[in-house]
Amino acid sequence: MKELEYLNIINKTLGDASFLGDDCAYLKEFDLCITQDSLIEGVHFLLETTDAYTLAQKAVNVNLSDLAAAGAKPLYITISLSFPQSIDNSFIENFYKGIETAVSKYGVKVAGGDLTGADKFFISICAIGKKYNNVNVSRRNAKAGDIIVLTGPHGSSAGGLKLLLQGKKEPKTLINKHLLPSARVEESELIMQCAFECKLKNIAMTDSSDGLGDALYKLSTGCGYLFDIDFESIPADEELKQTFPDEWKELLMWGGEDFELVFCIDKFAFEKLDKTKFFKIGTVSNKPITKEIAQKIEQKFENKIFKHF
Amino acid sequence: MKELEYLNIINKTLGDASFLGDDCAYLKEFDLCITQDSLIEGVHFLLETTDAYTLAQKAVNVNLSDLAAAGAKPLYITISLSFPQSIDNSFIENFYKGIETAVSKYGVKVAGGDLTGADKFFISICAIGKKYNNVNVSRRNAKAGDIIVLTGPHGSSAGGLKLLLQGKKEPKTLINKHLLPSARVEESELIMQCAFECKLKNIAMTDSSDGLGDALYKLSTGCGYLFDIDFESIPADEELKQTFPDEWKELLMWGGEDFELVFCIDKFAFEKLDKTKFFKIGTVSNKPITKEIAQKIEQKFENKIFKHF
Repeated sequence: MKELEYLNIINKTLGDASFLGDDCAYLKEFDLCITQDSLIEGVHFLLETTDAYTLAQKAVNVNLSDLAAAGAKPLYITISLSFPQSIDNSFIENFYKGIETAVSKYGVKVAGGDLTGADKFFISICAIGKKYNNVNVSRRNAKAGDIIVLTGPHGSSAGGLKLLLQGKKEPKTLINKHLLPSARVEESELIMQCAFECKLKNIAMTDSSDGLGDALYKLSTGCGYLFDIDFESIPADEELKQTFPDEWKELLMWGGEDFELVFCIDKFAFEKLDKTKFFKIGTVSNKPITKEIAQKIEQKFENKIFKHF
Repeated sequence: MKELEYLNIINKTLGDASFLGDDCAYLKEFDLCITQDSLIEGVHFLLETTDAYTLAQKAVNVNLSDLAAAGAKPLYITISLSFPQSIDNSFIENFYKGIETAVSKYGVKVAGGDLTGADKFFISICAIGKKYNNVNVSRRNAKAGDIIVLTGPHGSSAGGLKLLLQGKKEPKTLINKHLLPSARVEESELIMQCAFECKLKNIAMTDSSDGLGDALYKLSTGCGYLFDIDFESIPADEELKQTFPDEWKELLMWGGEDFELVFCIDKFAFEKLDKTKFFKIGTVSNKPITKEIAQKIEQKFENKIFKHF
């Protein structure tokens, strides 16, 4: 996917593209955030390595993660589900049991959708949420001196995917992180609450759905400053290091689908956050990204950004 | 698709299924309506018989039609688009030009979405709108004595599809009605305005996305009364009658995707509506649908309800 190229085309073609470019669109007149994400059989998942109940939960969490990254409390989802005629009723029942498990955890309601026949499974979910408060959240809000923070370890989901594609079933920690990632809903509320209490007007935040490297790239180019990252401080699961002794650093930085929050927040506010839940990995420097550096980064990133199988 | 069977499973599985069963879900706390509908290559369209610009407009209109059927002014859409890697940039550009054409007609804004690679084209659109006023709209609101009304002719879209599948390109009227149906946005506003001025609390409305027969079935079983339909009064395009002299009645009643509004409204209010835009086709009787009749209808409908190719 030449995603950036396509996004440029879309930006140029639409009369008003001001809503694009963040994890969610913010509809100011209703104080609501909205997002839509799809999971496609053969692209985002294989039916051989997951089940209806797990898959449905992941499909919901992927969207709740986008709302979390926008600092919004999830309220409603709609679900468009397409599936082959060969599917039996118990699959559909288990799928909606998974939906119910995922939404009931956060009091989210299913506000409709549609069902269609198709050759393959296709799940598209739209999620709506309400901002926790009026702290402005976007990928472009980081400023020099901000602390760069993560809500958890990276690389485990990509490690789990690698194991699944090799036909392996252990270690479970990694595989489960790929098949059933959490959405950082509670953490988003804590971050927003902290920012509000510290009277911040803005924080920069995104989720690491396409990999930690991708998230840092978006936040850094979004504000125009280089990031000083202390690689050693990025949390990683022990199982990842043990299972992939040669590759874990690569997976940590470039693997996708960990769905952790990656955010930049004022130093003073960071001090108030619970250090068992929020991990400092660096600071936003005061060195601007020059044109030359930007080109170098883009070339480097072209081959790195997370690709689905 | 055993759609009713699946809907029953979903209703039983979800903790709160109160939002399901209408063209849109109404989110009372925000006074917003939300809907999501998908178009899938090979199921809802063939790339050989349409183009990116036309397809995009249809995908938007299908969703705006749902909002119209809920008596809501369209405001925002999100778009999830999946497509094969072989697609060139001009296809994407033309697709988003089509989106822009469709949304700008009604001042609707594109509030994000996502892009994914896939084997086939898959378009899922979520649309959000605001009720024109507080007249309650649902498929269950018809009452004995109401006038049953249509916003336009039926069967033309199904006729157009039939021609396309036979490799024909004429008559254009029918083919265009299949490839690029309108959404009855202005008509919805007129209906809602009339209902409001006539101080009605409720009207029953849906769109004929799955065929006129299906829409009447939903409205009739929704209120529990039999409908007296005057078949001769159902508007049909002359081209439909001429092109399909033996089949047009079947297409008129059971063909899908005309996306007209089908509604039941108080006799007094109907008198105020513009008769060049709104066509009376019958009245809601005071004969309740008994269990026996319901079973007969369901058997008859099982084979009739619009199937996509």
